[in-house]
This record gives sequence, C-alpha cells and structure tokens, in this order.
Amino acid sequence: MIVVIKSDASPEKREQLIKWLKTLGLGVHESDGEFQTVLGLIGDTSKVDMDLIESLDIVDSVKRVSETFKCVNRKFHPKDTVVSVGDVKIGGGNFALIAGPCSVESERQIIEIAKAVKASGANLLRGGAFKPRTSPYDFQGLKGEGLELLKAARQETGLPIVTEIMNLKDLPLFEDIDVLQVGARNMQNFDLLKELGTLKKPILLKRGLANTLKELLMSAEYIMASGNEQVILCERGIRTYSDYLRNTLDLAAVPMLHELSHLPVIVDPSHATGIARMVPPMALAAAACGADGLIIEVHNDPSHALCDGAQSLTPAVFDGLAKKVESVRRVAA
Amino acid sequence: MIVVIKSDASPEKREQLIKWLKTLGLGVHESDGEFQTVLGLIGDTSKVDMDLIESLDIVDSVKRVSETFKCVNRKFHPKDTVVSVGDVKIGGGNFALIAGPCSVESERQIIEIAKAVKASGANLLRGGAFKPRTSPYDFQGLKGEGLELLKAARQETGLPIVTEIMNLKDLPLFEDIDVLQVGARNMQNFDLLKELGTLKKPILLKRGLANTLKELLMSAEYIMASGNEQVILCERGIRTYSDYLRNTLDLAAVPMLHELSHLPVIVDPSHATGIARMVPPMALAAAACGADGLIIEVHNDPSHALCDGAQSLTPAVFDGLAKKVESVRRVAA
Amino acid sequence: MIVVIKSDASPEKREQLIKWLKTLGLGVHESDGEFQTVLGLIGDTSKVDMDLIESLDIVDSVKRVSETFKCVNRKFHPKDTVVSVGDVKIGGGNFALIAGPCSVESERQIIEIAKAVKASGANLLRGGAFKPRTSPYDFQGLKGEGLELLKAARQETGLPIVTEIMNLKDLPLFEDIDVLQVGARNMQNFDLLKELGTLKKPILLKRGLANTLKELLMSAEYIMASGNEQVILCERGIRTYSDYLRNTLDLAAVPMLHELSHLPVIVDPSHATGIARMVPPMALAAAACGADGLIIEVHNDPSHALCDGAQSLTPAVFDGLAKKVESVRRVAA
Amino acid sequence: MIVVIKSDASPEKREQLIKWLKTLGLGVHESDGEFQTVLGLIGDTSKVDMDLIESLDIVDSVKRVSETFKCVNRKFHPKDTVVSVGDVKIGGGNFALIAGPCSVESERQIIEIAKAVKASGANLLRGGAFKPRTSPYDFQGLKGEGLELLKAARQETGLPIVTEIMNLKDLPLFEDIDVLQVGARNMQNFDLLKELGTLKKPILLKRGLANTLKELLMSAEYIMASGNEQVILCERGIRTYSDYLRNTLDLAAVPMLHELSHLPVIVDPSHATGIARMVPPMALAAAACGADGLIIEVHNDPSHALCDGAQSLTPAVFDGLAKKVESVRRVAA
Repeated sequence: MIVVIKSDASPEKREQLIKWLKTLGLGVHESDGEFQTVLGLIGDTSKVDMDLIESLDIVDSVKRVSETFKCVNRKFHPKDTVVSVGDVKIGGGNFALIAGPCSVESERQIIEIAKAVKASGANLLRGGAFKPRTSPYDFQGLKGEGLELLKAARQETGLPIVTEIMNLKDLPLFEDIDVLQVGARNMQNFDLLKELGTLKKPILLKRGLANTLKELLMSAEYIMASGNEQVILCERGIRTYSDYLRNTLDLAAVPMLHELSHLPVIVDPSHATGIARMVPPMALAAAACGADGLIIEVHNDPSHALCDGAQSLTPAVFDGLAKKVESVRRVAA
Repeated sequence: MIVVIKSDASPEKREQLIKWLKTLGLGVHESDGEFQTVLGLIGDTSKVDMDLIESLDIVDSVKRVSETFKCVNRKFHPKDTVVSVGDVKIGGGNFALIAGPCSVESERQIIEIAKAVKASGANLLRGGAFKPRTSPYDFQGLKGEGLELLKAARQETGLPIVTEIMNLKDLPLFEDIDVLQVGARNMQNFDLLKELGTLKKPILLKRGLANTLKELLMSAEYIMASGNEQVILCERGIRTYSDYLRNTLDLAAVPMLHELSHLPVIVDPSHATGIARMVPPMALAAAACGADGLIIEVHNDPSHALCDGAQSLTPAVFDGLAKKVESVRRVAA
Repeated sequence: MIVVIKSDASPEKREQLIKWLKTLGLGVHESDGEFQTVLGLIGDTSKVDMDLIESLDIVDSVKRVSETFKCVNRKFHPKDTVVSVGDVKIGGGNFALIAGPCSVESERQIIEIAKAVKASGANLLRGGAFKPRTSPYDFQGLKGEGLELLKAARQETGLPIVTEIMNLKDLPLFEDIDVLQVGARNMQNFDLLKELGTLKKPILLKRGLANTLKELLMSAEYIMASGNEQVILCERGIRTYSDYLRNTLDLAAVPMLHELSHLPVIVDPSHATGIARMVPPMALAAAACGADGLIIEVHNDPSHALCDGAQSLTPAVFDGLAKKVESVRRVAA
Repeated sequence: MIVVIKSDASPEKREQLIKWLKTLGLGVHESDGEFQTVLGLIGDTSKVDMDLIESLDIVDSVKRVSETFKCVNRKFHPKDTVVSVGDVKIGGGNFALIAGPCSVESERQIIEIAKAVKASGANLLRGGAFKPRTSPYDFQGLKGEGLELLKAARQETGLPIVTEIMNLKDLPLFEDIDVLQVGARNMQNFDLLKELGTLKKPILLKRGLANTLKELLMSAEYIMASGNEQVILCERGIRTYSDYLRNTLDLAAVPMLHELSHLPVIVDPSHATGIARMVPPMALAAAACGADGLIIEVHNDPSHALCDGAQSLTPAVFDGLAKKVESVRRVAA
C-alpha cells in the first residue's frame, strides 16, 4: 500500500502518521521527491482502513498496490539509487568497473592484479575467498586468509573490495569488507538475504542461474525490507540449452530492470560466457545498453589460475577493453 | 581413484592399507560386495602412486576414475542403498509414501491430516515449518513451533517426520526430526550440505529449479563425502517455458538417476505441477517408472491452506490414489 | 464465438442458421451432445451481431469466447474424440501401440520388424521414409521407395502405417498412407498444416522442440479449422538443459492436454530420451498417466540401424514391454 | 574432408582433380586464399582414398574433418563473406540497417515508412507479406499483393527488399524479391532450405526459437551445400523462462558465430524483446558486440498496426537510434 503525503505537510504530523502506521505492525519505507513524499507500507495491509488514512489532511492519496515488489519498485522511488562505496559511486550515471581474479591465490597475485586493473581504470577490486564449487573435490578458496589478502591489496591500491559471502556464520569475517556479494546459487537463500538487510553495507546481488527478473527483484526486496537500501543487481547469464557458451547473457535484463527498479544494474560477462575471447564484445554490449557497471575476471597468468582461468582476461586485454567501454558509454548515453 | 581388494584379503591387511591411504590425506569410502571390496579414494589423488598400490598382494586392481562423482556412483557401489527411518525403509524395493500439508498450521490441522494419511497407507509425514518464500511478505512458516507440532503428530500416529531445514543456524532445533529436507533453492548451498554430511540422519535432497542430474549428484556427493551415506534424491520438476503447469516434471530422471547412482529416488508431483488434479496421474507415472517413493501434499481444507492450497489433495483423493499407486508398482516392477 | 442450439430445434432451422453464418464468412464447427448442439464459429466474429443471433428461437445462448483455440477445445466438445484408422481406434479408452524402425531401410528389414511388433501387440506400424536431419550430410531416408516398402509391410501384416510427411510437394506420394505424421520441426509449418486440414486422413501432430501446450493446440487448430477433425497429439520431449538425456519428456502434458482438449494424446519415449534403456520405464509411465497410445522405435538390429539405433528396442524387449504396458493401463485407469 | 592445394598448382591439374572428385559423387567447395586453395569435399567421403589424393603432386595435405559443418566453417574460409544486395554490402565491415513494418498493410503505409527509414539511413526495407501466425484466426498477411506493394516501395525509394518466404510453392512469386527471409519456425524446414540453396539470391536465415548455434549453422550448411553461398545469419531471441520480455536475446551468439563461421550475422531486437522501448538499447548493444546489421520494425502508426505494433518504433525514434548505432559501431570496432 502506498500513501502519498502532501508536499506542505508538517514534519511533525508526518512523523505522527508514520509512528501510528508502525504500531499497526507495518514497515514504512519513505521516499522523498521534489513535490511529494511517498510512504510504502510493508507487511499485511489487508486490515488497514484506507478511508481513514485518506481522510487525514496531510494525505494526498492512498493506493493499494498490486505490485509484489515495493522497496525496489521504481514507481515508488522514481529516481535512480546511487550506491556509494567509499568515494566510488554506482548508478545514476556513475559507472563501476570491478575487476580482479576469480580466486585470491596469493598476496603477490592479488596485489599485482589489483595494481594492474587500477592503472587501467578499475574502481573496485573483486576476488573470491569463499568459492562455491559444484564438486566437493574442487578448490574451495582461501577463505579467511583470502579476505586478509584482499585487504592487503586494498591497502596497497586504495581500491574498495567486493567478495562473495556464502554463509551467515562467516559474517563476522566480512566486517571490514566493502561490498558483499551474494552469488547466483544463493540468490534465494532468504535467511542470508534478511541478515544482509540488517547491515549498513552495499550488497551485490547476482541473478540466480534460472531465476526470472521478478524473482531477482523479490530477493532484493528481502534485503531492502530488512532495512538495507544499498543493493546492486547483477546479470550474469542464465541457463539455457546453449551449446558453445556456458550460459546465455540476458542483456535485455539491463534496460528492463532499469524500468522496473531504481537500483543500479551491473553485468558479469566473464561468468556469462565462460570464454575470455567473448568477454570484450559482451562488456561493450553491456555498456551500450546502459549497464551501471561491469564485473570482469582478470588474471595475470590465466593458464595457471586455480579457478576459471579460461574466462579470465590478461591485464593487457583488460586495459584495451576499459578504454573502449568508456567510449561506448559516452556515445550510447 | 578406485582400489579393488581381493575377496580373500585378510581384514588386518585391508585395514592397514586403508590407514595408510588416510595418512596420504585421502578419504576412503568402502563398499563391500559378494566377491570383492571396492575402496573409493576421495581427495587429491594426483600424487598417489598407482603402481605401488597395485603391487600389493591384497589388491586386485587400481583404476583412475574420470567420473566426477564417487560416493554416489553406482559403479563403485552396485547395490541399491536402503535408507532406514525407524522401521521404514526406502530404496531397494521399499517404497516411501510421504504425505502431509505444505505448511504446518495448527496442532489440530497437522494431527488430523497425519491420521488421515496414515490410514491411507502413508509411512512418513511431511509438513513445512520453515518455508522458503519468493516474497518477504508471504507467510514464512511457524518455524520452531511448527517443529513441535510435527512432533506432536508423530507422537499421536507413530509416523516419522520429514521437514525442511533452510539454515545451518536452525540445526539445533532439528535434533529430534527424523528426515531433514534440503529444498530446491538450497541444493547448492554447499556449507549446509557439508554440515548435514556430519549428521547421522537421512537427508532428503531436492533437485534445484534448473539443475542438471550431474549437479544433483554432486550435491549428494557433498553430503556423502562428509560422511553421511543416508541420502534420498528427489525429482520435483524443473523450470522450462511451460505454460499451463508450474514446472516440468522430469520423470526420466528417475531411471537415469537409478542407473548413475545407488541412492533412492523419490518424486514430488505436487510442486512439479502446482495443480491438485495433475497430482494423481503424475504420482502413478512416477510409480510406473520405478520411483522409490512419493512426497505428496495433502490438506484437510485445501481452499483455506496458508500455502500452496491449489496443489494439495484432499484426504479422500489421496486415499484413492494410494491404492492405485500400490497396484501400479506391483505390475510395473 | 459459441452458439448453443436448443435440443428441440428443428434440423431445417438449424441448417438455415448455419448456412447464414457461413455467408458471413465464418467457418462453423458443429458438436452434437445429448442435450444440446454447440456451434463453434471460426473466423473474424468481431462484427457478428450477438443480440440478433441470441434472439432466434432455436438459440439457447451465445457466448464470446476468450479461449484462443476453439475446434480443439474440450469446453465445446466435451466427449473424447476417437480417431479411426481402419479397424484401429485411438482415444476414448482405445490405445494405439505404434512401433517400427526409425527409418525404413529395406524390404526385409521392415517386414521382419512389422511381423515382430504385430506379434507383440502393436496395432500400427511406424517407419520413416522422409527423414528430417540436422545435417545435410546425414542419411535422408529412402523417400518414395521407403513408402512403397511400408505398403509392402502393411500388405504382409495388415498393420496400418504411420509415416512423416515433410513437405507439401510430396503429398501425392502419401495418398495411400494411413496416418500422416507432422514432425516436431514442422509443428508450426502452417501451410503444411492447412493443407493437411483438407484431407480425410488422421494426422499425428508432434509437439515442437520448445513449443508450449497452447502452441501445440493452436497448430492442431490449424488442421481442424481447415476441416480435418482426426488429429492425434504427440508429446515427444522438449528441449531443456538436460545433461544425460536427449530431451525432457513432459509427461504432465498428457493429463493437461486431456483437460484442455478432446483429442487423443500419445507419447514417444524413444525420441524423448534417446536411450533404449530409458524407453521401457517412460513407456510405462506414459501408460500410467493416461496416454492414449505410444509410438516406439523397434529395430531388429539396433547396432546397425542407419538412424537413431541407440534409442531403438529389440523386438524381444518390445515384447516384454508391450505386456507390461497393458497391465499398467488396466490398473491405472 | 579438406584437400589443401599447393599455391603453385597449375589450373589445369586443379580442375582435373576437382572433376575427378565430382565423379566420386562428392560436392566440391573451393576457397581461394593468398597462399593456398582449400577444397571442401561434401558428401559421403568415407570411401575416398586419402593416401591416393595426398600422393598427387599438386596436393599439399588432406585432412578428415570432424567438424560437422563445412561450407559455413571459418576454418576452411578464413575471410569474412560479404553478401551483396544491389549496391548494398553486408559483412566484412559493411553494415545492413534493415527497417520496415512487421506486415505490409497498404501502399501508402509501406511507401511512407520506406521513405522515412531511408531518410534515417536504412539501406534495406523489410515488410511481411506472408505472415506465420500461431493462431489460424490471426491476420496472415497480404501475400502476393503484399509483395507487389513492397516492389512499389522499392521503386519509389530504391531500397532493396527483404521479406519472408514460408513455403516452397510460393517461390515463383518471389522471383523479383532481393533477399528471401527464412523465419524462425522454418529454420529446420530442410526441403525449403535445399531449394533456396539453388537460387542466386541472398537468404536471411533466422535462428529458430530454441535452436543451438550448431543447428543454425547446419541449416545454413543446407543452403550452402546446395550451391548458394549468400547466407546471412540472424539472432532474434530464444525461448527461455523470461517473465517480462518475449524472448531472450542471445547477443553472445554474435561474436561466437563470427568465430565459428565467415557468414555475416545480424540481430533482430524487435522480435527478441517484443517491446518498442527495449529495441534501442538492444540495437546499440548489438552494434557494440560486432553485429553486421540490424533488422528493426518501424511503423508510422504502431498503435494501429495489424501485427506486433507493441514492438514497432516510430520513424522519429528510429531516426535517433540510427545515428547512435553508427556512433557505437565506430568506437567499438
């Protein structure tokens, strides 16, 4: 349910109304616009007396909303959300170029790559410390040690770090991490989402392997309904009957998610295609259709990477790509 | 890697070999057959000296295995695994008829349904206490209280209980639960799988929404590699472009999983179709193609169910179905 | 648009109404029930004056139908359609057991197989003469000569024959064929469907590789709207991300198509799975969920078959399967 | 099978070899490079004596090819194919901007749109005369009359025309059409492909609804193996479980097809998304990842279009888009 507050409503009356709505057991999500304030009511609104609320003098109108998502919905929050990570801004015209290795392997490796991608224009560093692997016999990441190495690379380069959290119980280890990534396999791990909703940190939420856009937005809604508004959506390819490519990159999701939601949307061309040669054209395509960022795997020695080397760019290829991405963004905007 | 031990090997020598393999950092999975014992070596076997092992007098042969799954693989464990839940056996010719409501709603509801499905021949009771829901605004289950109500229904009827665990942190609440279910959305929640692998309880592992059979088996491998051999696989429909049905029930998965693995395979026709009228024909089809069990939603008042009422059978329909399932199993065997 | 005629309407008045409707450019599909006759109006009914028709004394009621399919719709034709092929009936409780080789290869081959499958209970013979092949370099069938060999086998055994037509221009060659099959790749070859709609022969219409049930029914509608009511629907597996099986057999399509349409529905477990060992369990499952028939590949020498040998049963395996199918049908009905 | 001819081979000896290969019942596809000539042998090469051919003095080497596609394969034809339509070139750096209405509706409509899109930079005119429609009750196109109107628009504007052929029997009507389009539903209508292979006209081959890249290439192979080398591939979205978009545009197919084949690849963002607002971002993305052209629906009055109005751009929107496409191509190249 949506309550539109008049622009000249006194702050006191407005607070009073919000307090009262909360006593009804509802969550209240406020969105201030130039000419009006929209309150999104979250929870069971079936017994709320619409007529009563509409009769209040500070209320312009009340609408029952059939939309299943509220906090993430552009209808109730027309302006682009801009997520801030230190000095880096993402969304609303600000572009995130996130790069780094699939897995953190050693201090030398991560620092070398971090310096290289920074020099090419990356503004965030990625690197996996906890790795979800289909097989229990595959390398599962350096875990806590990997997080420490990422921090060392941040120390060295100033780049904020993005890394995946797989499990609630590991949360204390992530206290000093800048952006927490929820991987595709955890997109509907609802307990994890709720807990991340209580943090004051940006969450990078990847679309699940075969999830619809609505399901992706509902998962973002889990995080936002728990109080954390800093969510970045990520398209990373979906499962189809593709023969030559690992997944099918659904780039039309970018403009469609922008229409449905105010949240920033970035693209992961590395996991989507699984093939380094396909990453540059798909990165340019993502930039051309309005993505707010890219997350790209870069490795200084792809043929010896412990994980997903086949899809990693060398620093030199990344450098050429970063320049072209910028040009494409400029002319396509 | 597979080590085949001669049938006349002395138990002492055999234990000695196993101990030595473990000192190499390997897990060892033993499978005794009538004429030979097969040891499945788990872990990094790349540095194991095959010639050395083959030269031992108790060893018949050594094979490097390209198969990515080992513990779950029928090749190394030719006989059907039979999972025991109290007096109920599942697999190897034993059929599990699991029935109950989508969600536990009240003591009266769960006991009434439990009595009804038991009278119709069900040998396990299902019921959701922790409910994964796409929307944060939907009913999320009675949680701990729901588990208590399930136990009350077990007390009343003697039926062992099957219920879903969504999160590691809830594990202590499940101590007295008979079978722990891993839902489709958690099929690749690897930390959860590893932890469940340390229990001495049967795990019902549902296939994920768009996961392949290999991925399902690899997730079972996570549980078994951690030491728990009591895994029941469950086909519950996969996501396609289906128009009139919620998911596409992939029944050919049943004989194919039986060929690939020794684990029991059951079918959930309720979630697969989402429509009560489609449940009986699909349950009969599952019985006809060799499923080791069925998990079916039954509700005493489907039109007022708090969750998924549209796919729940009434006790009367379930009663008729249970009899037909038995007849079909008999003639199709 | 549906016009319900009163049960006591005089045949003359009824004919008069139908003639008039046809002058409006509409097709009229009549369906006689015990208590009423239903006329389905086909074509652009947007300018038809409903009030005028409703005011006629022989008319009970008129309804605009939002359903997109009419002729195939069970709502307007509640009784099962029974398709007759010589003495063989299909649908409404009558079961078609169609068997034979993927491709006709020689006179000896087709006659030998025809005799074998007849002895096991098959009541129709299948065999490909025109073969759609993904590659232009693969065997494309014996074409006209293959049709002659099929007729020879029919002569020898009395079994009516089912074979695929790929192209309108070949139609004259099919004059003496009993059932014309439209393959999955041609399910939306609308010109072919329209032309087959002018014949007085049963058409076996296979579901396309990734077509929905609605699209399958709309393709059947093309045939029926052109005047041919003898359509048999066939589920043969759909394309998904399946790893160990060629396609995903969507058996729930069987009860769902029975609910939506009055047409008979048969199942092809051979193409669906691509693996001979998987054919028997899937054939039994199809029988258990109410299929009106099966179409199964049988070859006397599968390892030397020119096409799809891997999915062909030997006559001996088919013989055992045919008996079990009959038993399952009996108890599942 | 591939025969590499030495660069200094005399033309006579070369012709003699080719003639001899043809007497073996093989098709021979010649591809001249700077330093060598590659002969691709098409047909059953299993009985060809490789050693014999290799021993000829003009032959450098002979290879059996495991690749299933030959004529379309970049390995045997490293240079980009450039398809010519009048003065317009497509492929090898030349861009086709194909625009026009879904269906030809009237002379005024098609001429008005043709003039508009030409003014915006389109170099080919599209328009459907024969329309494949899921329902037999939907508008099926103006057919022959539509083709005449397209020719009138060509007369008026000089734009060559692209239009869909659905059936072999209509072929005589298409004699004066510039580019024949094979629609998604006919991608595996092999008889049609073979016949189009005998023409001397460019064929625009659309990827089927759920076909793999290999299947698309094999269908192009059908056309080329019959002698027509002017094939343009078209990605137009594939069927998935997409919720807000009609199909899923698989843009990574563009660079992957370019790697596998020398044929030009264009993109249809209109059918892929089904929503006019999504067409510009997807057109830009296609340009950014290297597409050799775009085919876009433009209608002067989308809200009254007889077919697919929801996905048609107005001429004004198309005009803005065409300029941006050009800029993106320039910087992304």
